[in-house]
Amino acid sequence: MHIIGIAGGSGSGKTTFANKVLKELDQSQVAVLHMDSYYLNEQPKETHTTAGKPNFDHPGAFDWDLLRQHISDLKEGKTVQAPNYDFTTNSRLELTTVIEPVKMILFEGIFTLFDKEIRKMLDIKCFLHVDSDIRFTRRLHRDVNERARSLESVIAQYYDTVRPMYQKFLDPQRQFADFIVGEETDVAAQILSSRLQHLLEKES
Amino acid sequence: MHIIGIAGGSGSGKTTFANKVLKELDQSQVAVLHMDSYYLNEQPKETHTTAGKPNFDHPGAFDWDLLRQHISDLKEGKTVQAPNYDFTTNSRLELTTVIEPVKMILFEGIFTLFDKEIRKMLDIKCFLHVDSDIRFTRRLHRDVNERARSLESVIAQYYDTVRPMYQKFLDPQRQFADFIVGEETDVAAQILSSRLQHLLEKES
Repeated sequence: MHIIGIAGGSGSGKTTFANKVLKELDQSQVAVLHMDSYYLNEQPKETHTTAGKPNFDHPGAFDWDLLRQHISDLKEGKTVQAPNYDFTTNSRLELTTVIEPVKMILFEGIFTLFDKEIRKMLDIKCFLHVDSDIRFTRRLHRDVNERARSLESVIAQYYDTVRPMYQKFLDPQRQFADFIVGEETDVAAQILSSRLQHLLEKES
Repeated sequence: MHIIGIAGGSGSGKTTFANKVLKELDQSQVAVLHMDSYYLNEQPKETHTTAGKPNFDHPGAFDWDLLRQHISDLKEGKTVQAPNYDFTTNSRLELTTVIEPVKMILFEGIFTLFDKEIRKMLDIKCFLHVDSDIRFTRRLHRDVNERARSLESVIAQYYDTVRPMYQKFLDPQRQFADFIVGEETDVAAQILSSRLQHLLEKES
């Protein structure tokens, strides 16, 4: 059982990268685990912004106990009931998603390389390092077009939480990565998927 | 025919990394091309240091015409007579090294991702990004112990050419890399060699 951690800021292209890798693999053997399913149902006061709003870019926003338990269970070949998070109401749904035992997990999210215990369980650690202006404009585009957010609110959130949290908590994860990928990910995705194919073949 | 560029500063571990990758491959199909064989026989005055000494950390120290020609020839499956450089006399030897047509070249050196024409001929571009203090101490250790240089001369050369050239010419190559590897290279070497095995198998 192999777990591949894919970390990077919002707008760094984690999902696109994970999909490029996944496309080359036997998808019956691989599952994708999204870290943002593991937001806490109630955001801790300590990590709130100065304006008193929940800070979803802070590591304290996640349910680390459940995450460690699930990654450890998956590693041992157990079935896991992954939570589902509703971003419109900012709360965890009753409904869970069953993740059956698979040979490989692509674990993607902003803090997948953050926790020491979880890092020990990862077989390959990858960080997407993309310039801040590109990350910002991608996020802006998505939030304005797909989530009907105002330009002003996206910019305010960027300075309020996204940017400081990136510098303080997110970027330092780079030091733990086995390899770092930039804006162009085609070749890196091919290289990684070749390795993962090899690992899957060795096991079967 | 595939060419893999491996760039990084002096002391970043290029040779160690290339050897880790090579070890996993069928070595009858792969050759290593060292960029430092391609130093110019006579160093151009324009790139000399303020003290009037040759600057081997400047891109202008290399024979780019010959390098472009050889990489293009290798890409076309031709045999190449690679030069040999004598670092004790700082001049090119008469003796050349024959590189027979192979399926893959690992091309390593400080400026392997520097030249636009050469970059176009590279199939995979890798950069070793290691902190400056680690690069310096490795270089110090090697130069003092293996090359009988004095501590003072190593430090002087570091400030005179190594450090400014790294910042000006070497580090900017990172932007062209398909993936970036840090100090720990075991996992990255496995990932890359899996891809190269896959490419070799596809060709045979």
